[in-house]
Amino acid sequence: MQSIKAVAFDAYGTLFDVHSVTAKTERLFPGHGKRISEIWRQKQLEYTWLRSLMGRYIDFWRVTDDALKYALKTLRLQANDRTRIVLLQEYLVLKPFPEVFSVLQQLKPVTTLAILSNGTPQMLNSIVNDAGLGPFFSAVLSADAIKIYKPYMGVYQLLPANLGFRKEEILFVSANSWDAAGAKAFGLAVCWVNRSNMPFDELDVTPDLVVNNLEQLKNILLR
Amino acid sequence: MQSIKAVAFDAYGTLFDVHSVTAKTERLFPGHGKRISEIWRQKQLEYTWLRSLMGRYIDFWRVTDDALKYALKTLRLQANDRTRIVLLQEYLVLKPFPEVFSVLQQLKPVTTLAILSNGTPQMLNSIVNDAGLGPFFSAVLSADAIKIYKPYMGVYQLLPANLGFRKEEILFVSANSWDAAGAKAFGLAVCWVNRSNMPFDELDVTPDLVVNNLEQLKNILLR
Repeated sequence: MQSIKAVAFDAYGTLFDVHSVTAKTERLFPGHGKRISEIWRQKQLEYTWLRSLMGRYIDFWRVTDDALKYALKTLRLQANDRTRIVLLQEYLVLKPFPEVFSVLQQLKPVTTLAILSNGTPQMLNSIVNDAGLGPFFSAVLSADAIKIYKPYMGVYQLLPANLGFRKEEILFVSANSWDAAGAKAFGLAVCWVNRSNMPFDELDVTPDLVVNNLEQLKNILLR
Repeated sequence: MQSIKAVAFDAYGTLFDVHSVTAKTERLFPGHGKRISEIWRQKQLEYTWLRSLMGRYIDFWRVTDDALKYALKTLRLQANDRTRIVLLQEYLVLKPFPEVFSVLQQLKPVTTLAILSNGTPQMLNSIVNDAGLGPFFSAVLSADAIKIYKPYMGVYQLLPANLGFRKEEILFVSANSWDAAGAKAFGLAVCWVNRSNMPFDELDVTPDLVVNNLEQLKNILLR
């Protein structure tokens, strides 16, 4: 890890817990909160992949809304626009995982920190600022800049292009196995955060580092 | 439907039941058959989308093998290569849905019939011939010809390019909502076969026709 000059984090699922929406989904739809959250996230990802392949980009806020619509329809839950927007706005206040603040605080003095995410700049600024993480990041980069989603190679290219380091000098950190695979295929150094003890996706690439949480990564980087 | 000059079917999930593998998965892994089949199919689709976006195409046989590897790992089931290949070979003898033979037999005299699928030519020929459907099809087209998967627009372009009809003269039939959406975005006439009463994916397009099975589609086409 000596050659690493910057650490770039994925946002959703890596720094921020997408399932922190569950408190609100469960309150509005008792007994369905967890399933709404699961289908919502799965469809959100699928729609980014499908729209990118179809060449029909819309931004991540609208993708997230579409995915929520699908989740509610699948579970046969009635929701007017107002209810749906109340849920959608949870994406502006997603909670960071418990170790995030402390880890970023300790890494900040020794390396350049960045975010690379599918989220719109507005969505990313909102969750970063809501969690008080703004001062830690030198750059918050969004796939929205090129109107296509991960794991398209051009999205990962935003990191060397904006940070001014070579691919292999940037450690990309993601809890999403397919995202870690995309970054590795592009040529970044990659750490997969395997938060829930799952197998790595079978995409013919292997991450350089596997940890269970960001605390472990911090210990490796600072040792 | 008067302007329709050809009917092109998706293969997996539309003509052939991907979950007909379950008898074998259940026999080899009692109690896990259904879950293996579900994860296997989900990951098979995800890997086609992810690899297409990553620009790292491998053929559908290998994608299907990778997806099976992931499914077995996720469920913590041990399988040697021989067991995995036994399961994988079920994809060469997938069963058609019950109405398929009769529907194709009745449509054949009145229109041109084709298949457009992600499957390799070998995989498609195997299931088509195993089910005795070979004589019905004028063309069996595979995404393998252009080394990228649905819903990339170029895959749907294989239909007008090979059948010699205009986009809007070709009715594309798929039970996969995202596939129907891709075909519609490309400009084909589209029938979605909603076999399990699900919502249509939220991708800003609407199929021209929705049926619950191919028998209903045949009745519409022949009336």
